[in-house]
Amino acid sequence: MKINCRLVTRILTNFIREESKKAGFERVILGLSGGLDSTVCAHLAVQAMGAEKVLALIMPYKNIDAEGIQLAEKVSKILKITYKKIDISPQIDAYYSAFPTDSQLLKGNKMARERMSILYDFSAREKALILGTSNKTELLIGYGTIHGDMACGINPIGDLYKTQLRELGRYLKIPEEILTKKPTAGLWAGQTDEEEIGLKYEELDLILYHLVDLRQSPDELIKAGFEEVKVKKTVELIKKSEFKRKMPPIAKLSNRTIGHDFLYPYDWDR
Amino acid sequence: MKINCRLVTRILTNFIREESKKAGFERVILGLSGGLDSTVCAHLAVQAMGAEKVLALIMPYKNIDAEGIQLAEKVSKILKITYKKIDISPQIDAYYSAFPTDSQLLKGNKMARERMSILYDFSAREKALILGTSNKTELLIGYGTIHGDMACGINPIGDLYKTQLRELGRYLKIPEEILTKKPTAGLWAGQTDEEEIGLKYEELDLILYHLVDLRQSPDELIKAGFEEVKVKKTVELIKKSEFKRKMPPIAKLSNRTIGHDFLYPYDWDR
Repeated sequence: MKINCRLVTRILTNFIREESKKAGFERVILGLSGGLDSTVCAHLAVQAMGAEKVLALIMPYKNIDAEGIQLAEKVSKILKITYKKIDISPQIDAYYSAFPTDSQLLKGNKMARERMSILYDFSAREKALILGTSNKTELLIGYGTIHGDMACGINPIGDLYKTQLRELGRYLKIPEEILTKKPTAGLWAGQTDEEEIGLKYEELDLILYHLVDLRQSPDELIKAGFEEVKVKKTVELIKKSEFKRKMPPIAKLSNRTIGHDFLYPYDWDR
Repeated sequence: MKINCRLVTRILTNFIREESKKAGFERVILGLSGGLDSTVCAHLAVQAMGAEKVLALIMPYKNIDAEGIQLAEKVSKILKITYKKIDISPQIDAYYSAFPTDSQLLKGNKMARERMSILYDFSAREKALILGTSNKTELLIGYGTIHGDMACGINPIGDLYKTQLRELGRYLKIPEEILTKKPTAGLWAGQTDEEEIGLKYEELDLILYHLVDLRQSPDELIKAGFEEVKVKKTVELIKKSEFKRKMPPIAKLSNRTIGHDFLYPYDWDR
């Protein structure tokens, strides 16, 4: 799972540059949370495009993740990128005052979708392509909100596991506090990813790497010494979240159906 | 382009039943606008699942499409399905009072995403699968909001052109006013799809059918008598909207990347 950080940085900055150009954008935009993933992404974007072509939105809900917000501002200042702080509380509260719930998960999903919606609004206003900040671990186990934080124009870091991103973050010299901070989706005060998922990123990434990248079966992993309950849980998470990694199925009726046999290549004859 | 309405109805009701089951849902939910597409979809859903398993959300913004809202309520009552009317104005206004714009397109997209977000919230609360209501015409030319009205769990009508949906609607005996009403995205008072797109659905569908289903080239269409400017415009719309029909590209680094070579089949070993 060791990565060559110099090479990875070169590949990812090229990716950002070339895909933005292909999509017709000269600038990029991303949501900054003060966490590892969006911070690494912002660093890559600045290396790829130059600081003046990168726009960041910081979108707190109330005071729920004050530390993250502060770090996101710090990152913006270090990188000298333009950023905007937008409080999403009025919209979220307007909705939940009409339809109250105690579910932090429901609220967290609504917040993630509100942030997406604001990012797309600013993407159109500012003519800037949205960079996704979901990593491979999150995408594989579905730890993210469909049409929320998982939505983007292009995703530079979706093929890096969380632990690999930490390695890359160290190489890119992102602030130490962000490297050592416990990963959180910022859904409620004190929330951490690892507690919510029930697995440490180190072991989760290792299991995923063996299952997905090395194409080993769950049985092989268990024989090799991985804990059965953890392997099974991981497989279950991958399967249950498949819908988040796909376009929705369309009922097939004709000779040529979108998503079935109408699949023009990404850069068809432009 | 003629369809066998009886057969199509059987295929689509089976699709709704089977895909909901596969996804683990016993109920479905959809947004009702009072337009042709969502009305046909609601009829199909009721035939597939029974009225008591279908939930509709009607989500007006202010008074912008009062006729549509009234028709949506009428359809719900005719079909005897449970429906909820949810005003999205407070959230939309909260946002645009902070970030004013004159662009109807920006506002329309924000509204579409707010409706999506509420549908997903209710999908989780009510354990009901979201039915998409984008038709083949809209999907091909990108006339819809990504992560807005284009978002869904499954889409029963995505392989039917608008004109075919009208035929199916007639067969399903949906209210005459809906069959004859000018299609509108309800973005502003008096807005009609055809004026905004700049083509009548009849001719647009015919051009799309020849390009996509019959796989003819633009030149062949022009030789066959289609107006050059209309053919070229349609091809342009298809190309420019490709990103709305795909998952976002992920930069490839590993042996097995999501969206590249990690593509488990939809019902992998469940």
